[in-house]
Amino acid sequence: MRILSGLQPSGRLHLGNYFGMMEPALRLQHEGEAFYFIADYHSLTTVHDPVALRENVLNLAIDFLACGLDPAKATFFRQSDVPEVTELAWILSTVTPMPWLERCHSYKDKTARGVEASLGLFGYPVLMAADILIYDSDVVPVGKDQKQHVEITRDLAIHVNHLYGEGTLKLPLPRIKEETAAVPGTDGQKMSKSYNNTIGLFEEEKALKKKIMGILTDSTPVEEPKDPEGSFIVQMYRLVSSAEDTATLEADFRRGGTGYGDFKKRLLAAIWDRFAKERALRAELVANLDHVHAVLRQGAERAKSVAVPVLERVRKAVGLR
Amino acid sequence: MRILSGLQPSGRLHLGNYFGMMEPALRLQHEGEAFYFIADYHSLTTVHDPVALRENVLNLAIDFLACGLDPAKATFFRQSDVPEVTELAWILSTVTPMPWLERCHSYKDKTARGVEASLGLFGYPVLMAADILIYDSDVVPVGKDQKQHVEITRDLAIHVNHLYGEGTLKLPLPRIKEETAAVPGTDGQKMSKSYNNTIGLFEEEKALKKKIMGILTDSTPVEEPKDPEGSFIVQMYRLVSSAEDTATLEADFRRGGTGYGDFKKRLLAAIWDRFAKERALRAELVANLDHVHAVLRQGAERAKSVAVPVLERVRKAVGLR
Repeated sequence: MRILSGLQPSGRLHLGNYFGMMEPALRLQHEGEAFYFIADYHSLTTVHDPVALRENVLNLAIDFLACGLDPAKATFFRQSDVPEVTELAWILSTVTPMPWLERCHSYKDKTARGVEASLGLFGYPVLMAADILIYDSDVVPVGKDQKQHVEITRDLAIHVNHLYGEGTLKLPLPRIKEETAAVPGTDGQKMSKSYNNTIGLFEEEKALKKKIMGILTDSTPVEEPKDPEGSFIVQMYRLVSSAEDTATLEADFRRGGTGYGDFKKRLLAAIWDRFAKERALRAELVANLDHVHAVLRQGAERAKSVAVPVLERVRKAVGLR
Repeated sequence: MRILSGLQPSGRLHLGNYFGMMEPALRLQHEGEAFYFIADYHSLTTVHDPVALRENVLNLAIDFLACGLDPAKATFFRQSDVPEVTELAWILSTVTPMPWLERCHSYKDKTARGVEASLGLFGYPVLMAADILIYDSDVVPVGKDQKQHVEITRDLAIHVNHLYGEGTLKLPLPRIKEETAAVPGTDGQKMSKSYNNTIGLFEEEKALKKKIMGILTDSTPVEEPKDPEGSFIVQMYRLVSSAEDTATLEADFRRGGTGYGDFKKRLLAAIWDRFAKERALRAELVANLDHVHAVLRQGAERAKSVAVPVLERVRKAVGLR
């Protein structure tokens, strides 16, 4: 079973990304043949700064490896190291009816949020379909918001097989990710870069301290009991600590006698400890970028060895060469 | 000066194609470094039959070589033998504003004529831009109907250079083809496959005879003078004969005493003779397809040797790799 997932290199990862996307992906690498790529072609629709793009790609690679992506299990590569995918995207585009794209929510949402309405953004679902189909993927884990794109991928594969013969493309299945509890940001809203309320996965200690200690709380006096429900401190603590430690924290909230300042310190320590191993591995990787590049190169070779024959199959079917 | 031109493999060529497109292209190969490609990626937007596509590509290659395309002068290749162009098309698509494409006449015209409104058809001007820009082309000879597309290509190159640095892409110049007198079809309208009034460039002798002898004429008796103006016979004769022979024909029209049947026979002979050399060369090529394939292969190698460094320049500028 081949599992395909694309990762957007859109800046440094925060804890919302970690718990929402990265942790599930890391778990999945043990369930099948994972193909994970850094979607730099897609990023070009929003990032027009070459230095930022290169940094984002490298950081995403380092972060994933630091967090436990195992290159011996997962095929981990940069999308643009397998340019064959753009050729498949063109071929697919010639049989993609415009109305299929016109009704995509994602394009409308993004342009409404101010992303430039480019052909690339509009045609994004077709490159995504090519990403999926060129690896004969079986399963594509997606959030609810991406379900429509996997459906277009399936419809396209069915359409191509109908036009050019069964077996030209393999039909993938979406696997809708379980709703992970939304990770709260420091202001209590969903953690998101657009709300400026994020805590970085590899935040510097000083910056992390400033963010945690600066969280706004109510003015319940130290000695009085506090309600753990709805507290950002408790919600975040639960994500980075054991159930036992969380129960203790909640009891201390209810008991009274501890101020928010102390709770914040405990949260700070818990976040810091939770990613200690990852931080150490990250430092090693940063000191050995050759290894990171070698992993991506080997991943690209493996990915290519799957993509090239699939593309050849499609080229033959449509009459190229 | 590099001159770029794409040729649509949309079926067997007719005399309208020959005088409108092929002859000017053949003349241009002596004026600069001609890069002529068979646009099979573009054809996929209208041809969903792999056997037909392969036949059309091969026939176009044979026809062009038979008519005098000189592979020692011109770089003659199949578009899909340089798949790098699809990668550049993706990169360009990420900075192509949708309104630029929404106002293109060609898409509206084609869908109005019943061509399926696909993403490929809509994004056609961007692949065309990639075709032009990936070869650092200087000049693109186009008909009036394609002028808008070359303007989009220039606008895109300017936009990319503005975003990513001057010199990332080279600005091409359109060269609007002189209005060649529209080639009339057998019914007097413009010769076009959609009017079913074409005369094939390499029509079989019997079929050609049937078409010419079947042309409708007025009922002026043999002995009376006839008006050469507006006569399909004279117009077509002029294209395939010397000025002297045409003057003789016109005089014979005006003098009277010759019936339309005789004029048709003279036209038939003139067409047949005009392409005698081409027909002989075509027969040789059909008997030696290895040579045709070798020409296209060598053309592709030469084209690639230009395209790969240009694409590398662009990849670097936008931050890929």
